[in-house]
Amino acid sequence: MTIVFIGAGNLATNLSIAFKKAGYSILQVYSRTEKSARELSKKINCDYTIDINKLKKADIYFFAVGDKVIKKLLESNNFENKFIVHTAGSVSIDVFKDKSNNYGVFYPIQTFSKERIVDFKNIPICIEANNRDSQKLLENIVNSISDDLRIINSEQRKLIHLTAVFACNFVNHLYSISSDILKKGNISFDILKPLIIETANKIIDNDPKCAQTGPAVRNDNQTIEKHLKMLNDDNLKNIYKLFSDDIFRKMNG
Amino acid sequence: MTIVFIGAGNLATNLSIAFKKAGYSILQVYSRTEKSARELSKKINCDYTIDINKLKKADIYFFAVGDKVIKKLLESNNFENKFIVHTAGSVSIDVFKDKSNNYGVFYPIQTFSKERIVDFKNIPICIEANNRDSQKLLENIVNSISDDLRIINSEQRKLIHLTAVFACNFVNHLYSISSDILKKGNISFDILKPLIIETANKIIDNDPKCAQTGPAVRNDNQTIEKHLKMLNDDNLKNIYKLFSDDIFRKMNG
Repeated sequence: MTIVFIGAGNLATNLSIAFKKAGYSILQVYSRTEKSARELSKKINCDYTIDINKLKKADIYFFAVGDKVIKKLLESNNFENKFIVHTAGSVSIDVFKDKSNNYGVFYPIQTFSKERIVDFKNIPICIEANNRDSQKLLENIVNSISDDLRIINSEQRKLIHLTAVFACNFVNHLYSISSDILKKGNISFDILKPLIIETANKIIDNDPKCAQTGPAVRNDNQTIEKHLKMLNDDNLKNIYKLFSDDIFRKMNG
Repeated sequence: MTIVFIGAGNLATNLSIAFKKAGYSILQVYSRTEKSARELSKKINCDYTIDINKLKKADIYFFAVGDKVIKKLLESNNFENKFIVHTAGSVSIDVFKDKSNNYGVFYPIQTFSKERIVDFKNIPICIEANNRDSQKLLENIVNSISDDLRIINSEQRKLIHLTAVFACNFVNHLYSISSDILKKGNISFDILKPLIIETANKIIDNDPKCAQTGPAVRNDNQTIEKHLKMLNDDNLKNIYKLFSDDIFRKMNG
């Protein structure tokens, strides 16, 4: 099976490397940014182009670009007889309607960075397809890199993507906030790492509601007041208040 | 060395079990709540009391109770010739001033639940003492259960406790929010677990700022707008907006 990647970002990098390892032939990488295209093509040893009209003929075209870009590219090139697949959490499968006869979605639920190549084995991959043959093809591809295939429609996928923003991006931002606060006190962020790992591990076997600890859940207003006084950034004060109120409300409501 | 525990909550449970394993003799557990006192005393096979004036004579008294309760108990009993130690992140060591000649703080940076007994080996434990002998004693106790001893003063400890609220309690609340949203779509929370674990593992080797992904950091307003429309709870909308603004501001400011 031959593949062309449209996009050369975090997801394209991780996914193309996984596909190459699984034995697929990556023919080409397209990106608007020549630097990104060249870098990824080097990693997986294939051609690259920055001209959407110079895509090679392949069995499958993976769109790993933002929502707006998918639409633009679909207008600049004819994909009518091509099998096209996108990887975006919040984009409906219908973006491909009338653009091709065979299309689908391939959405791995994970956070990807170019510098950190992950193993797909335990990553849930959500697929959706416009017909049986397309679905069968996507199933085979998932099964070649992951043990966790999920058939998920566009509405469910949007919901999953929304929660991934809370459980990953916002969580990571809380790590970032903590790191900044510690820096001001000349304390290494390392000191929080065992706590961060345990907080994540704790919900593998427990409902997060039962796992909750800290001043908000035990309604310890004295500590909450002390903490609010220590924060001199209005955004952080708001985040602290909103979370403390919401934790108390959810645990007692 | 003999120990009396004042408090029978999450921390007291985990710490007393760790001490018992390390060979210390736990003589007694005090709690205002008879049920808690009895339950913990059963687990570690010792006596219990709900009368603060009936504490047994021991080498060291561990206060594992809330801030307000520490102050109350110090008034109801004379600890003058006793070695007293508290375990609260946000309470200064000075709470013990004029109450005893030997005192200190023993603050493990971790989230504890009664139902989940943790290993202290990799947990950073922050200690502070009012004199050399007290410090030496606390150092020995830390070293008997953990490889990560930290000498931390009250001001630094307050800062650490504040960041633990962000990096643990608020993080866990984001897990809880995600779980609730998925429930409404009849999707199992399990689907997010590999993402949650990777998000935590990612910051072990990377600065959280470099680890950030998602719509806010790439300024993908289309997805942000879609997500805000999907949230019909005002608190959640506010959390989503605050975080997205703050992520964008921090990454580009």
